[in-house]
Amino acid sequence: MPKKSAQPAPATRIAPAITNVLAERYASPAIKAIWSPTGRVEIERDYWIAIMKAQRSLGIAIPAAAISDYEKVKDQIDLASIDARERVTLHDVKARIEEFNGLAGRESIHLGLTSRDLTENVEQLQILRSLTVVRQKTVAALLGYAKRAKQYRNILLTGRTHNVPAQPTTLGKRIAMFGEELLAAFTRFDELSARYPARGLKGAVGTQLDQFTLLGGDAKKVARLEQSVLKHLGFKSALGAVGQVYPRTLDFEVVSALHQIGAAAASFATTLRLMAGQGLLTEGFQKGQVGSSAMPHKMNARNCERICGFSAILSGHVAMTSALAGHQWNEGDVSCSVVRRVALPDAFYAIDGLLETLLNVLNQLTVFPKVIAAESARNLPFLATTTIMMAAVKKGAGRETAHAAIKEHALASAAAIREGREPGMVERLAADDRLGLDASAIHAILADTGSFVGAAPAQVDTFVDTARATARKVKGASSLKPGRLL
Amino acid sequence: MPKKSAQPAPATRIAPAITNVLAERYASPAIKAIWSPTGRVEIERDYWIAIMKAQRSLGIAIPAAAISDYEKVKDQIDLASIDARERVTLHDVKARIEEFNGLAGRESIHLGLTSRDLTENVEQLQILRSLTVVRQKTVAALLGYAKRAKQYRNILLTGRTHNVPAQPTTLGKRIAMFGEELLAAFTRFDELSARYPARGLKGAVGTQLDQFTLLGGDAKKVARLEQSVLKHLGFKSALGAVGQVYPRTLDFEVVSALHQIGAAAASFATTLRLMAGQGLLTEGFQKGQVGSSAMPHKMNARNCERICGFSAILSGHVAMTSALAGHQWNEGDVSCSVVRRVALPDAFYAIDGLLETLLNVLNQLTVFPKVIAAESARNLPFLATTTIMMAAVKKGAGRETAHAAIKEHALASAAAIREGREPGMVERLAADDRLGLDASAIHAILADTGSFVGAAPAQVDTFVDTARATARKVKGASSLKPGRLL
Amino acid sequence: MPKKSAQPAPATRIAPAITNVLAERYASPAIKAIWSPTGRVEIERDYWIAIMKAQRSLGIAIPAAAISDYEKVKDQIDLASIDARERVTLHDVKARIEEFNGLAGRESIHLGLTSRDLTENVEQLQILRSLTVVRQKTVAALLGYAKRAKQYRNILLTGRTHNVPAQPTTLGKRIAMFGEELLAAFTRFDELSARYPARGLKGAVGTQLDQFTLLGGDAKKVARLEQSVLKHLGFKSALGAVGQVYPRTLDFEVVSALHQIGAAAASFATTLRLMAGQGLLTEGFQKGQVGSSAMPHKMNARNCERICGFSAILSGHVAMTSALAGHQWNEGDVSCSVVRRVALPDAFYAIDGLLETLLNVLNQLTVFPKVIAAESARNLPFLATTTIMMAAVKKGAGRETAHAAIKEHALASAAAIREGREPGMVERLAADDRLGLDASAIHAILADTGSFVGAAPAQVDTFVDTARATARKVKGASSLKPGRLL
Amino acid sequence: MPKKSAQPAPATRIAPAITNVLAERYASPAIKAIWSPTGRVEIERDYWIAIMKAQRSLGIAIPAAAISDYEKVKDQIDLASIDARERVTLHDVKARIEEFNGLAGRESIHLGLTSRDLTENVEQLQILRSLTVVRQKTVAALLGYAKRAKQYRNILLTGRTHNVPAQPTTLGKRIAMFGEELLAAFTRFDELSARYPARGLKGAVGTQLDQFTLLGGDAKKVARLEQSVLKHLGFKSALGAVGQVYPRTLDFEVVSALHQIGAAAASFATTLRLMAGQGLLTEGFQKGQVGSSAMPHKMNARNCERICGFSAILSGHVAMTSALAGHQWNEGDVSCSVVRRVALPDAFYAIDGLLETLLNVLNQLTVFPKVIAAESARNLPFLATTTIMMAAVKKGAGRETAHAAIKEHALASAAAIREGREPGMVERLAADDRLGLDASAIHAILADTGSFVGAAPAQVDTFVDTARATARKVKGASSLKPGRLL
Repeated sequence: MPKKSAQPAPATRIAPAITNVLAERYASPAIKAIWSPTGRVEIERDYWIAIMKAQRSLGIAIPAAAISDYEKVKDQIDLASIDARERVTLHDVKARIEEFNGLAGRESIHLGLTSRDLTENVEQLQILRSLTVVRQKTVAALLGYAKRAKQYRNILLTGRTHNVPAQPTTLGKRIAMFGEELLAAFTRFDELSARYPARGLKGAVGTQLDQFTLLGGDAKKVARLEQSVLKHLGFKSALGAVGQVYPRTLDFEVVSALHQIGAAAASFATTLRLMAGQGLLTEGFQKGQVGSSAMPHKMNARNCERICGFSAILSGHVAMTSALAGHQWNEGDVSCSVVRRVALPDAFYAIDGLLETLLNVLNQLTVFPKVIAAESARNLPFLATTTIMMAAVKKGAGRETAHAAIKEHALASAAAIREGREPGMVERLAADDRLGLDASAIHAILADTGSFVGAAPAQVDTFVDTARATARKVKGASSLKPGRLL
Repeated sequence: MPKKSAQPAPATRIAPAITNVLAERYASPAIKAIWSPTGRVEIERDYWIAIMKAQRSLGIAIPAAAISDYEKVKDQIDLASIDARERVTLHDVKARIEEFNGLAGRESIHLGLTSRDLTENVEQLQILRSLTVVRQKTVAALLGYAKRAKQYRNILLTGRTHNVPAQPTTLGKRIAMFGEELLAAFTRFDELSARYPARGLKGAVGTQLDQFTLLGGDAKKVARLEQSVLKHLGFKSALGAVGQVYPRTLDFEVVSALHQIGAAAASFATTLRLMAGQGLLTEGFQKGQVGSSAMPHKMNARNCERICGFSAILSGHVAMTSALAGHQWNEGDVSCSVVRRVALPDAFYAIDGLLETLLNVLNQLTVFPKVIAAESARNLPFLATTTIMMAAVKKGAGRETAHAAIKEHALASAAAIREGREPGMVERLAADDRLGLDASAIHAILADTGSFVGAAPAQVDTFVDTARATARKVKGASSLKPGRLL
Repeated sequence: MPKKSAQPAPATRIAPAITNVLAERYASPAIKAIWSPTGRVEIERDYWIAIMKAQRSLGIAIPAAAISDYEKVKDQIDLASIDARERVTLHDVKARIEEFNGLAGRESIHLGLTSRDLTENVEQLQILRSLTVVRQKTVAALLGYAKRAKQYRNILLTGRTHNVPAQPTTLGKRIAMFGEELLAAFTRFDELSARYPARGLKGAVGTQLDQFTLLGGDAKKVARLEQSVLKHLGFKSALGAVGQVYPRTLDFEVVSALHQIGAAAASFATTLRLMAGQGLLTEGFQKGQVGSSAMPHKMNARNCERICGFSAILSGHVAMTSALAGHQWNEGDVSCSVVRRVALPDAFYAIDGLLETLLNVLNQLTVFPKVIAAESARNLPFLATTTIMMAAVKKGAGRETAHAAIKEHALASAAAIREGREPGMVERLAADDRLGLDASAIHAILADTGSFVGAAPAQVDTFVDTARATARKVKGASSLKPGRLL
Repeated sequence: MPKKSAQPAPATRIAPAITNVLAERYASPAIKAIWSPTGRVEIERDYWIAIMKAQRSLGIAIPAAAISDYEKVKDQIDLASIDARERVTLHDVKARIEEFNGLAGRESIHLGLTSRDLTENVEQLQILRSLTVVRQKTVAALLGYAKRAKQYRNILLTGRTHNVPAQPTTLGKRIAMFGEELLAAFTRFDELSARYPARGLKGAVGTQLDQFTLLGGDAKKVARLEQSVLKHLGFKSALGAVGQVYPRTLDFEVVSALHQIGAAAASFATTLRLMAGQGLLTEGFQKGQVGSSAMPHKMNARNCERICGFSAILSGHVAMTSALAGHQWNEGDVSCSVVRRVALPDAFYAIDGLLETLLNVLNQLTVFPKVIAAESARNLPFLATTTIMMAAVKKGAGRETAHAAIKEHALASAAAIREGREPGMVERLAADDRLGLDASAIHAILADTGSFVGAAPAQVDTFVDTARATARKVKGASSLKPGRLL
């Protein structure tokens, strides 16, 4: 029986520890609580206690009083003390075992476990809980898209391909389009969340040998021990034949699913940045936010830029986990250790920060309908050429003749714009006898904007319905409020 | 002295086209047929014809004779002619339209379509069909793992962590472990395959405006047109609100799913390379294969190395599609064009080549049980220390005393090995009075190898059952035969 | 109704080989000649002949007539025959040895060489020659930037940060800015080109054992053999202690240097796409190019998009070579083989296609000065606030008072714009007594555009000088003409 | 004049801040001092003071007393106070300006600067100083390789390709081989270090407009201000035509140079892991390190695994900076902001942690010559077949006959090994009349091990000389001692 742990000398703190910028600047309390050193120790201690209880119920000689002694001290988390122990043993798990044993004055945890029986499952639990947080926020974002899509369902907008005006759409449809991208990413993510499997209590090389030894070679007891612990953790499924570690392709799967969500948001953010550059909208200011002092009217899409930045970061975490995938040596090694210490929490901080930012953007977005309308008015004569041609044909013009006439005027009008003159497209068309349409006829065509947007409003409706149906299945999504951004 | 080769005709200095090395060296006919220029033209022409028929049935004035004229010539695929047309128009779709129109003497295809209405759906169909091929081969590989795992279910093997001996396992369990990794990758892949959605006939900016115009503004007809075409293509679902293009995160999803499969195989291949280096097995030779002429006995795991190489290539395709994800501008642009021309077919060639190689390795794998047994014999005295300690305790030794004694002998035996002497572990243990075990008692413990492998054989059985159940759902998987490797 | 096309011969169902799309659609003849299978065989045969000559001169018994027999047939390159041989031996090098021996009726090549003595050096030679091509084109592009920067040196342009108007610059300066980025990439590339080292003739594990054996253990002869061959190849330096292969981090270095060049060009292309979206310029049309038929005036920046696409592709090749870096096992393995077959030629095709496209864009770029001027006129009142404030202060206004007044008007004017009204910024300022500036005073300030662009014109001059000085050191750069794009 | 800053309310600290694991677990004090928030503030304040002095010397009205007031308080760095300010202003630079002004009771810093004039140059200075640290440690590692290469110069080792025995080499040569890879990476890195250019004081869009305004439009003064500040920072060169930011391809260049160093080390570490798995060596234990308690003799190459892990992390930072490269919009945006906050410090922490680990491995490496010799003895009869054949030919055997005989025996011996029998290669050869060599003749051949290693020892010498010559140019490299690892 070990002595109560000696109190480590108070750390001399010459420099404050360097903080994790993703966690401390951008991530929300919910995700930080899962991945913080303290949060991890909490999860570990719960896990150890759950195992002791299960082992005791299966006949292992662990006194109830010992379990109780651990429970009494489990909230006494002293990271500095653990750190000091690790600097002696150079073994992080051993340091945390000693600390917990020292606090409880017992040695009953971690029986028949290897380090990886602890760390693999604890880290998978951190992932599982993080998936729940991300799931909720992603659906909250889907609702945000739905709300905005509905709000702007019928606002005529100059649709662009190659970044130049192409055909009319509506602002709501454009937002629904990006919502649809996020929805596709969510679908994949949701499948993963639903089946994310634990490694389980598999021992040093995956054969469960130590639990077999501990439980007298009784395969059923070994299975019951694992099942009861995984149930406690909240896992719905477990891997069967694993080695020391669960397959690292699973980390790649998780991180690439996060990246897909982040990239879907980044497409939206990129387009908002384009639109802000044309003055069509602004992502909005938070209360108290200071813009450029030299140019107080300048409204920078800095949150949208940040979303794109997070997406770039996640692409790096994809690369890190991709670098681990496919490199398992035998039953496992720890080349992955430092990588996973970085890539897993950081990927969750990044996606969390991204979603927080996205939710704020969706909340604060301010559109300028007059500017949007002015853009449409400039472009509509060009965008409506097909409709005008068909009107001309109805009036008796030959199709090829009408096409040639319109092409001629479109080119001339475009050339005028490029030379700094008024396009005069309507006037040119009205003056052309080949078409047989006067100015009022053409203006009437252009005024019927509803006829230019095809299925756009209907697509908005379908998207909104789907987003809402999705949200009904995800608890807390509809009431989720993002934090204030830094 | 070799015979003179027949003189080839002097090379005409028009250089032959540079071939795609992934396709021509490694990919199977099935996948090449989908992605070859010829294969693509076939798909396109079928697609155009299907649309004409659907349009005609919805009242568009396309003569039945016109459709018939296209059908007559659809197999006349002359890539050189198409290429020549493109070098004039500098527009690939236009070139292929003109070619098909020219052959049929008609102008009825592509009505109300934009280029992307063609290319997006055709490429998605190439992807959909490729997913089917990959799905079948992946399951064939799972069956290959299952067969080998069953075959070697009970062969005792030195399990390794950190690449050094750790605990015993069985060879079958090791193979099942890698099978389990592939199974996890397959599960994800299968979810994607089951729901891979088409963009559909959405027009220039996604509003279906041109089909609305063509079909007299009748939304129901527009929907029926799209549905009938997608059904023809074999898609089970379609995206709703899209722009000019389907979201590029979907390409990232596809390619990262392929990479996950490839990386799972690469973990297996990496470990085979390690085992081949220890002489435990060989990936086998194909008939006619020439090894090193200088060292004829040298059996290189070059196919396993190739699997790892394919996985590295796929990580590059992940990076390419990741570079597109999150970068949609408005309703879409063509920054993605050249990337998708490369990354999509090449990713499928690579995974196909990888799976072909893996299937060959699984077929030809040859293990050397005697060498494996010799390795186990060397390591077992070290690996069995826990069991020996417990036997000593049963004989009356104190636990701590026994632990200390065994540690002493293990360190001494290890030191002996490192100095080139015999470890003598058994002799050391037998000579130590603290343990109370003689040599025959210790040999008896070591001989009971079944007791060292815990749940390994049972895990094999579970994996085999799962693999077979999976295969029953995938037509053709169990009878699939890989091609001969280059 | 189009004319019937000539009937092509019915396709023989042996499918044509799938071509490499990067090579065949985008790359120039110069780079294709280096990496084509034919080009490679040419290089190999030259290399073998050079070695035979060097070996003969060092006393190895190779008859002069044998060398002469090889020289006679070295241009008879029959890829189909080589391919057929490889499908028998399953060993690519052996197939090419047999083919060359067969043609010459001799067996004197490849004496004392291992496969890697051939392939490593041949591939490095392909790289070295490709570096020369890329170097020349990059400098040609620098000259293109310089020409355009000079041409537009003094055109006032609304500089943007966060994609919104920030401060004035000049169009020439913006182009020089991107030129500066390419220049930095070139500097790094040039350092690499100057020292790119060959592996040399190092034998199976790098000890040169086989050449030692062949040359009677004479270290000096071994060194002379290697030196004379490397000199023949054109390498300026060689690696010393290598294994079977040269370090794969060197491939990463090459490809990341190419990516840096490509990304520098992509930054420029991205900004051109933004500017095209605002109607400020167009990348131009090639003769015969067909734009959108529905919207004939639409000028898409598709070449600029393509440049961005190539950059994304190169990021994938960076990932592929990064996946090889750090993974050398012992003296080497061939996990890298298939990766390098893909990543090396494809990276060079991609950068070559990118530079060809960039050179075309630089040639065809058409700016619309009137549109640029109109944008400046809209933004200048906002951009000139600092100057206006200082003028007010000179007239006696308090600094803080002036700042507050201007801020008020800027916000009001911006609000007006967003509500679709005229900003009226000048009028607002002129009407404010706190500033003491009338409309003509303010117009005078705004008209003095030269005072808003700071060092921009001078920076253009410096860049132009540097680009020209660089070009003087690179033969052929200033006269290089890009090919016609597809 | 602002009031002294009000003391922010003491932060309620429910959870301790989450620390950066790369910095706090792995990085050395030297690199942490550069990138810590405190270190950054120090650099910034020095930078501001340097600019004030330069501005004052050029005639700007900044009182000497103001500068002195700043100097007095510059070491009072209160991160919590800065943090509290940022949470109000939502602008990090503004928060730090206010804090410094508040401490000094002045408002003279940051005159005519934009945020990026501060942050770009400060961050580049962090990079420049970090390059110096990395440069020194890389050269220290080169010396470590050199020392070990020399030490093991003549130890015969079984060289391996495809991970199977191929040809003999020496252990020193193998180490020199990896040293050569690091040397190549260093060469590139050193070129970059020597020319790493600063952005300079270029203003909001790169035109230096604000400094022009401040310095009365005097271009020479503007240039002198920039030069004096850059000289103060220690930069040897500056970029000319830039925008708001320096080109982000430069970040890619830096990080990819770090990755190249890290990957070179990872190749070495990978091979040590392979060798440890064969029992040939151990990376060593640090004092106090606890191995596996269950298997006390187990010596895991966990530091080598960690080196590989760091390399994987750096590949992720390459991906992050690659995701920024090529995406500059106009004069710049801040999509890069969060990415650079993560990727730049983390990449330096990772390479620093990697090099610290590598230096420890090089110090603690322990080889087992007897085990190495036993491996050679097993393999030598196979590896020496060429030499044996030539001896037989000298004795009168026909070359083809000898080759066939040896091949026969090699295959039989290899088969014997695979079946668990003694190879008996020497006995087989000695018994074959076709060769004319008795056992003693063959043993004599095998004993002459020096003849099997070709140029290996000479290559070691050349590498050692180069490493030492390199070290003489880098101050502090030869005396550098790594820290103790966690």
